[in-house]
Amino acid sequence: MTTGVRRRMGVEERRQQLIGVALELFSHRSPDDVSIDEIAAAAGISRPLVYHYFPGKLSLYEAALRRAADDLAERFVEPREGPLGARLLRVMGRFLDFVDEHGPGFSALMRGGPAVSAGGALARETASATNALIDSVRQAAYDQILAHLGVTDPPARLELVVRSWISLAESTALIWLDGRRIPRAELELQLVHDFAALAAVSAAYDEEMAALLRGILVTEPADGPFTELLDRLFALVPQASADLR
Amino acid sequence: MTTGVRRRMGVEERRQQLIGVALELFSHRSPDDVSIDEIAAAAGISRPLVYHYFPGKLSLYEAALRRAADDLAERFVEPREGPLGARLLRVMGRFLDFVDEHGPGFSALMRGGPAVSAGGALARETASATNALIDSVRQAAYDQILAHLGVTDPPARLELVVRSWISLAESTALIWLDGRRIPRAELELQLVHDFAALAAVSAAYDEEMAALLRGILVTEPADGPFTELLDRLFALVPQASADLR
Repeated sequence: MTTGVRRRMGVEERRQQLIGVALELFSHRSPDDVSIDEIAAAAGISRPLVYHYFPGKLSLYEAALRRAADDLAERFVEPREGPLGARLLRVMGRFLDFVDEHGPGFSALMRGGPAVSAGGALARETASATNALIDSVRQAAYDQILAHLGVTDPPARLELVVRSWISLAESTALIWLDGRRIPRAELELQLVHDFAALAAVSAAYDEEMAALLRGILVTEPADGPFTELLDRLFALVPQASADLR
Repeated sequence: MTTGVRRRMGVEERRQQLIGVALELFSHRSPDDVSIDEIAAAAGISRPLVYHYFPGKLSLYEAALRRAADDLAERFVEPREGPLGARLLRVMGRFLDFVDEHGPGFSALMRGGPAVSAGGALARETASATNALIDSVRQAAYDQILAHLGVTDPPARLELVVRSWISLAESTALIWLDGRRIPRAELELQLVHDFAALAAVSAAYDEEMAALLRGILVTEPADGPFTELLDRLFALVPQASADLR
């Protein structure tokens, strides 16, 4: 039954292959613009065979999103060793790899989702499932950061810093994708620094946050991203305070 | 024809009254849960008369959103006089007033919109119009901030700081609404400080941003929010740097 050129795949293997093909297509164009025929062609199978594995484009789109979400959540996983700044910098590198790989799809999804694109037919149920998926990835990022901070029962101010920074990382990536006018490496470092800056603002007014921040800074090496930021801010701020006088 | 109790309204006046009534209801409950009967009762008119002014709930919902968006955009308008920190603090006060007034409606809208709520019937066109409206409010905020900074042709890094901070203000408000575990006044000040902190991070690595930040700090009084933050950070950071040694 096999041609010798293309071996026959098992059901699950074929499903996974189709999801991969679909994700690649959805990463670069709106789901409305990608046809089942195109997915079939890219996978090297017939259109009816695609329908054998997935009832329609919607379910294939949802499966592709789920794989992307799992993939992104995995990139947040980082060994709990070494200085925190360096760990966060590695995670930001992998996050921006993801954003890079799925650029247009990531943008469409985060800007209200492809369900609101013109002329499309994606259902409300998909929009709802999509939102739940995005929230689950945000929660995975939040849980990872708390684990790295060694905090199990975060005070309200810490929760706000971490969750609002996650949202900042998303919006920063979206703004960057629109033209890529800032070098990527700079952006990775900036996101790590933004985290420190938001934590510092919170710590400036709250002793519990101040104690937490001091605990982080103690473990930072002289060549880590947090220390480098402090040095640069010291260099910047005396100038500003001199201007004030 | 008038009862003497309730005077007769003109068409536009009645439309505006209905929009106000609808906005009040949509601010506290999902549009799916608010019926035309309820809107009619709250406005003191009959159900058919509501339909005389609006073809259906969708168009009334869109009109209510448009009024909320206009209202919010107006709150960003601030005279261009006095120190920048104090101006931003006043705007943040009005922004959080708005968030306070429209709490549940604001949350539902920003978390993917009511169009994704379970069992509802709001159309894709509404979701699309809603997203465009949200973007127009973000753009109004962005334009205001650039005007206050006196910048007409923003470099990429400044655009990133301003736009990502606007997104941070949104997410901070959303996180705060979920439980209100942080005093509101603290949140207003924190958002102003977050702006300074994100600008400082950008300035630490870019001379153009550093010059801009120095220009702002020069005009800040000793009792303004920016100077207060610097003082508090200086008090915080020497401790941290001492710990490092």
